[in-house]
Amino acid sequence: MDRLAALPNTYKLVRRDARAGRTIVQLPNGASFGGEVLAICAGPCSVESREQIEATAQAVAASGANVLRGGAYKPRTSPYAFQGLGAEGLKLLRDAADRFGMSVVTEVLDPRDVELVAKHADMLQIGTRNMQNFTLLREVGDARKPVLLKRGLSATIEEWLLAAEYLLVAGNAEVVLCERGVRSFDSATRNLLDLAAVPLVHSLSHLPVIVDPSHGTGLAKLVAPMAAAGLAAGADGLLVEVHPDPPAAASDGPQSLTFEQFETLMGRLHAVAAAAGRQLPSATLAA
Amino acid sequence: MDRLAALPNTYKLVRRDARAGRTIVQLPNGASFGGEVLAICAGPCSVESREQIEATAQAVAASGANVLRGGAYKPRTSPYAFQGLGAEGLKLLRDAADRFGMSVVTEVLDPRDVELVAKHADMLQIGTRNMQNFTLLREVGDARKPVLLKRGLSATIEEWLLAAEYLLVAGNAEVVLCERGVRSFDSATRNLLDLAAVPLVHSLSHLPVIVDPSHGTGLAKLVAPMAAAGLAAGADGLLVEVHPDPPAAASDGPQSLTFEQFETLMGRLHAVAAAAGRQLPSATLAA
Amino acid sequence: MDRLAALPNTYKLVRRDARAGRTIVQLPNGASFGGEVLAICAGPCSVESREQIEATAQAVAASGANVLRGGAYKPRTSPYAFQGLGAEGLKLLRDAADRFGMSVVTEVLDPRDVELVAKHADMLQIGTRNMQNFTLLREVGDARKPVLLKRGLSATIEEWLLAAEYLLVAGNAEVVLCERGVRSFDSATRNLLDLAAVPLVHSLSHLPVIVDPSHGTGLAKLVAPMAAAGLAAGADGLLVEVHPDPPAAASDGPQSLTFEQFETLMGRLHAVAAAAGRQLPSATLAA
Amino acid sequence: MDRLAALPNTYKLVRRDARAGRTIVQLPNGASFGGEVLAICAGPCSVESREQIEATAQAVAASGANVLRGGAYKPRTSPYAFQGLGAEGLKLLRDAADRFGMSVVTEVLDPRDVELVAKHADMLQIGTRNMQNFTLLREVGDARKPVLLKRGLSATIEEWLLAAEYLLVAGNAEVVLCERGVRSFDSATRNLLDLAAVPLVHSLSHLPVIVDPSHGTGLAKLVAPMAAAGLAAGADGLLVEVHPDPPAAASDGPQSLTFEQFETLMGRLHAVAAAAGRQLPSATLAA
Repeated sequence: MDRLAALPNTYKLVRRDARAGRTIVQLPNGASFGGEVLAICAGPCSVESREQIEATAQAVAASGANVLRGGAYKPRTSPYAFQGLGAEGLKLLRDAADRFGMSVVTEVLDPRDVELVAKHADMLQIGTRNMQNFTLLREVGDARKPVLLKRGLSATIEEWLLAAEYLLVAGNAEVVLCERGVRSFDSATRNLLDLAAVPLVHSLSHLPVIVDPSHGTGLAKLVAPMAAAGLAAGADGLLVEVHPDPPAAASDGPQSLTFEQFETLMGRLHAVAAAAGRQLPSATLAA
Repeated sequence: MDRLAALPNTYKLVRRDARAGRTIVQLPNGASFGGEVLAICAGPCSVESREQIEATAQAVAASGANVLRGGAYKPRTSPYAFQGLGAEGLKLLRDAADRFGMSVVTEVLDPRDVELVAKHADMLQIGTRNMQNFTLLREVGDARKPVLLKRGLSATIEEWLLAAEYLLVAGNAEVVLCERGVRSFDSATRNLLDLAAVPLVHSLSHLPVIVDPSHGTGLAKLVAPMAAAGLAAGADGLLVEVHPDPPAAASDGPQSLTFEQFETLMGRLHAVAAAAGRQLPSATLAA
Repeated sequence: MDRLAALPNTYKLVRRDARAGRTIVQLPNGASFGGEVLAICAGPCSVESREQIEATAQAVAASGANVLRGGAYKPRTSPYAFQGLGAEGLKLLRDAADRFGMSVVTEVLDPRDVELVAKHADMLQIGTRNMQNFTLLREVGDARKPVLLKRGLSATIEEWLLAAEYLLVAGNAEVVLCERGVRSFDSATRNLLDLAAVPLVHSLSHLPVIVDPSHGTGLAKLVAPMAAAGLAAGADGLLVEVHPDPPAAASDGPQSLTFEQFETLMGRLHAVAAAAGRQLPSATLAA
Repeated sequence: MDRLAALPNTYKLVRRDARAGRTIVQLPNGASFGGEVLAICAGPCSVESREQIEATAQAVAASGANVLRGGAYKPRTSPYAFQGLGAEGLKLLRDAADRFGMSVVTEVLDPRDVELVAKHADMLQIGTRNMQNFTLLREVGDARKPVLLKRGLSATIEEWLLAAEYLLVAGNAEVVLCERGVRSFDSATRNLLDLAAVPLVHSLSHLPVIVDPSHGTGLAKLVAPMAAAGLAAGADGLLVEVHPDPPAAASDGPQSLTFEQFETLMGRLHAVAAAAGRQLPSATLAA
């Protein structure tokens, strides 16, 4: 009766019945995806400077985020847009996270950079535009690091889970999925955040899934309600863009929260997390 | 900076700044849309018999629903599918609602039926396929009854609000919007429930907006998490399909909850409603 | 192996094997849909005045169009937009067509207007927004007039054919389908013209299908290449918006051709029509 | 008045006014994209064996194709699907093309394979899933080989042209775009072939654009009408999947033509090519 009631047999390792319980992915600082305590990943779209990333890490850690996100290699639609600080950005990110007791998640674009990025990051992000970059999937599947696999711009649930299957079949079982909105006909929001993907993935697979309300809407004013909605839908965590000065951000300013907005958001999420049987991480005091 | 930060001036009456506060739409039994207490509309897709609708009304009222939904005139993709009981269905719906202290919302398809439907129902539903049936919008705009305006299958937020504008300009200010999912490329769910529409509509308009997780997903197993997500996103109510025996339903069986599933759902929604600063209606005791 | 290799059995009357040959729909002036000679429908989006519609009829007839199109009742997204001249527009359209030997196709929006519109028009158009207005489909199915059924904004091929089935089951077998573009994620064009619908419909059904490159693209500069592409795909005719002064048009100016552009287009279509085994109608001399 | 009447200034090198005339891309065997004679690329989805690719090259060359296509590295949704013959496939492709006077176009997936693929192929294909694989775009931009850049699954025209801009800015000006259908809500066809993209790209850019009716529809029965429609829309060439025995193909069987179907197609395209002011390449006699 159900559409997609269970995955076809072409899925082997991501299926819910492929292992006994649900997968819980642990990061070095104690953050985990899939357990009772949620993973809250926060930070700027792009790492821009030491001052920017350290101030952001301090602020988001103080509000309860436990994973620092930030792009060192940026996949930009235009070749003339800011492409990220590269290796230097990785180091800034690592230093900032270490100083405030956070783990690091950052995107890797090039299969030849996997080793370098894995040296600095605790979790490798495969971005939306690379969800079906099978070369990159295989290389990241070979790395011994947890992976955050974002859903493709117009990927079906089945295609997304098969992309995860590429990682698992290569030997990397520490995979977290991230719903970040899909392309739609309405330009009122940047993407259409598909929150039903959260319980649907949970019903089909043992892998954790988190929600990115920043890319999922493209509008700062919608981030808080959609973060709450994501947790109510059962998400195992959130990925939120935060910037010291959104209008001055090198990328994604319109969807980034200020420190104060992020603090307010976290304050309001306790009740909805509890309603979903989960809790937020404890805030880390500034170093 | 925002996309659609404010509506163009071609919108006059639905704009948030067109009136002082937010619109609250009241139904005769005390149910309201837009106030602190949520509106919970529940019932079968189609009214099938007196036994079916009365048993459903009793069950959903006992679980806390305050508006009875059910279709007497059904817009069916195929001319050979069950088209509803028509006028007889309206009477069965009215009787069942009266017996259990509920208000009635039901769809009207034909401008020539508006008077008849308005005689039996407390709220007129304009369905997805008729969101831009301007003839029907004008006729319902002339009726002195609250309206539930569902979003079209691929309607933008702007088009949806302009459809509401047709109702308001005709003189009917008691309009509630209903997000019920839009068409997408992924057949894993029947539609793609666009929950960001809830806070976006709230930021643009003074009208209340509710969520239909049944049509929004098409899968019973996803209704509970998406109902919770809808409330967390700030929805003013829910529309949920409930049937005594979903596999035997004349329409929409795969997305209908059993009485027991609905009761469980309502039990779980209290905490998320509270987290959103709202409360569920009090359950009505059986007659 | 094929997706949609044949229609499910829920289709009875529109199926290709439901009758011996292909349906050919004839209009009073000799125009036909489905025969060797193509049907070329042209005219303004809205009838605006006697001068406008007569000048247009004269120009398009002289270039070889054999059906005059023009809206008297306009389905407009905004209640504040021009809604058409109504009954007066029907008469102007009829007079202009008669003067230049054309047949008339025009849209009917309201089931209560079917009789009036059928009195003046030779072919009743059911517009995109009403493809699943089942009330209207039944009423038009009862009329003894050919019907032009436009595809809905996001209607699947199956839904479109089932909408036609509503007409056939009501007793009206003279149905022509019109592909006019569907909604997509790219705002570069107004709609996405789905020309594969033409051979797909031909493979599934005995009904004729024409193409509307004006709504299908929304850009005058794309009308000529897409008209040619539509004929090459096997379309049984075209529907093209033409206006004496597109920038001054009450509606759809950006996609309307001038008289001169239409004449140029028709001149260029002869070769592609011949390549598809068809021919354009002979031009009618001005009265 | 036009949507996307001209490209924003963020485009520099792909703009129509960035150079005097239109770009014509030449391949070693005389095939060209953008000139009066069309480029006809044909061959199997995957290179499977020497017998398969030689038989196909012979057949399609005899019917008038001048570029041999075939995948050695296959981007497959599932990790368990056939992934291509790799380097061995490149050699088989090269040998078959040389034997029958054809040029070779084949996909490169991994930036580390660009040099190897460029050694065997005359034109490097960047596939749909890699349109925004910016790492690959930069690497291919550095190669001195013509590029065939397929449109992404849900890429806008602007994003597609910016992907081409990555190639041009890296120094590779020999870029041909390929429209191959975009993702839509209707599963009746595999993709929705957006033929309006052809004249739209021609109006915005000096780059040639070809059409792939095989992926664009996913159904062999629709390939011929859509190939004709593509030429009528002004395409500079076609990419058609042909296989000795489609039901036995390792991939894309349902959309592949038999040799006989391809020959029939080519026979019918002469007239529509002529109607568009173009001509098909002369058939090459078998070796």
